Amino acid sequence: MLFQRIAIVGFGLIGSSLARAIRRGGLAQEIVCIDRAQAVCDRVMALGLADMATVDAALGVLDCDLVVLCVPVGAYKNVIAALASGLKPGCIVSDVGSVKQAVIDAVLPQLPADVHFVPAHPISGTEHSGPDAGFAELFEGRWCIITPLPETDIRAMEKIVALWEAIGAKAEIMDARRHDLVLGITSHLPHLIAYTIVGTASDLETHTKDDVIKFSAGGFRDFTRIAASDPVMWRDVFLNNREAVLEILQRFNEDLTNLQRAIRYGDGDTLESLFTRTREIRRGVIQAKQEVPPAKKA
Amino acid sequence: MLFQRIAIVGFGLIGSSLARAIRRGGLAQEIVCIDRAQAVCDRVMALGLADMATVDAALGVLDCDLVVLCVPVGAYKNVIAALASGLKPGCIVSDVGSVKQAVIDAVLPQLPADVHFVPAHPISGTEHSGPDAGFAELFEGRWCIITPLPETDIRAMEKIVALWEAIGAKAEIMDARRHDLVLGITSHLPHLIAYTIVGTASDLETHTKDDVIKFSAGGFRDFTRIAASDPVMWRDVFLNNREAVLEILQRFNEDLTNLQRAIRYGDGDTLESLFTRTREIRRGVIQAKQEVPPAKKA
Repeated sequence: MLFQRIAIVGFGLIGSSLARAIRRGGLAQEIVCIDRAQAVCDRVMALGLADMATVDAALGVLDCDLVVLCVPVGAYKNVIAALASGLKPGCIVSDVGSVKQAVIDAVLPQLPADVHFVPAHPISGTEHSGPDAGFAELFEGRWCIITPLPETDIRAMEKIVALWEAIGAKAEIMDARRHDLVLGITSHLPHLIAYTIVGTASDLETHTKDDVIKFSAGGFRDFTRIAASDPVMWRDVFLNNREAVLEILQRFNEDLTNLQRAIRYGDGDTLESLFTRTREIRRGVIQAKQEVPPAKKA
Repeated sequence: MLFQRIAIVGFGLIGSSLARAIRRGGLAQEIVCIDRAQAVCDRVMALGLADMATVDAALGVLDCDLVVLCVPVGAYKNVIAALASGLKPGCIVSDVGSVKQAVIDAVLPQLPADVHFVPAHPISGTEHSGPDAGFAELFEGRWCIITPLPETDIRAMEKIVALWEAIGAKAEIMDARRHDLVLGITSHLPHLIAYTIVGTASDLETHTKDDVIKFSAGGFRDFTRIAASDPVMWRDVFLNNREAVLEILQRFNEDLTNLQRAIRYGDGDTLESLFTRTREIRRGVIQAKQEVPPAKKA
């Protein structure tokens, strides 16, 4: 057993999946649910996902050797302020946030000196939200990126690595800023684009919008799935990874303008040459995937 | 049996899937493969997808009561020029192109007066190309949009509707320009965006690009799949649906700039409000899908 008593703060898709995976693996003696919504606490107890559930964060973390933040990253500051007084010496605080540098900046100054902070980000999810949407297999075969600080206790980090590996993820150590840049490209920008294009479609006049929904196969349907992700979580991602997102968005805009121009002036060579080049990246992605066991959902 | 002798011009993903579906349904006495590549003709015969195969288009269409163009839309003009002399009176010419008005403009002036033209577009596909990539179930439960002209012979149109319904598709009649606008949104713009974002990623310095490929879950992987689609087919789509694509791209750009501004100035309300609104569209898409039988591949 890796931990005695784990508190999970925020029982949405990721928090409830983590609780299910920990329970299934017998990785903790006890799981505490902390959620600001009493209805979620009640639901978690009804689903049997935790041994106790409370809206009182400082009470919930009492005697825990691990606390995992699974709330939108914009809420970290308030959550840490609410629970810091309950943390016992030697406790490990970790998280699952999609942004890492801003999280470190928000959490670290508020933590007691005798508590270990190990930031982490499992790269998995679905477009569904809430405690009922979770499932124990969510992290299987997926990466979990750990972004320790120079001063992070090595044994604390190893325990977090062991936790994620025990529930089927592949752990990778990375610098926080590098994480934010890479994820800005692979995850944040695609989400922003998908939200934009679905938003553009939703502003069409009714008749056209109905047809767009009806004939939504062929690209757009994939975008609507991505754009159905949790709004608050994603709002916080963009607000907290602003620099990397704006930087990559600028490059994207230049490239899109270039294609727009090629279309306007009938420059087929530019289009075909890019469309051929992008196949290389796809091949890389497929090859990279061959190293990992297939996951149930992406 | 719906047709005596069907010529399919271009045996890529769509052409070869159509041949397989026609053969499986026993919908024609004979299938002729016309492809400009002798290697494709040989492969088609080896796979048993046609009764004869030829690179000579005018020869291939002899005595056919149906000819279906399954080549990139930019090739229509030359293909029609090559085969028009072989078409017998009363023959129906149809197609599967992703763009409809430009196709009508290219094909109609070149066809003999005693030949019927019924433009069609089955909304289905995968990112794979070539005669081996096809499968008979590709069109099951999918829409096939037919865009007849005011002068189109009603019985010719009904035979094309019957063909697509016999292979499992749902036929829908639509004006060509409306088709081009709707598909510009649901298919062409998403493909353009996906090609752009994967292109942007492929221009990153090697170390970052490797990480982007490695951690490609979470949006980007879906984009790489879309951006692996046939380069020549998509080049022709953008060149031949220029007006609709540029118009919708303009709206998309305005919306993206608005979000970019919201990120820069930390305007969380604008972000959250859009991210909430896009869920409505997703619900519509899911409801629309419930009306159709599940397809094997999208």
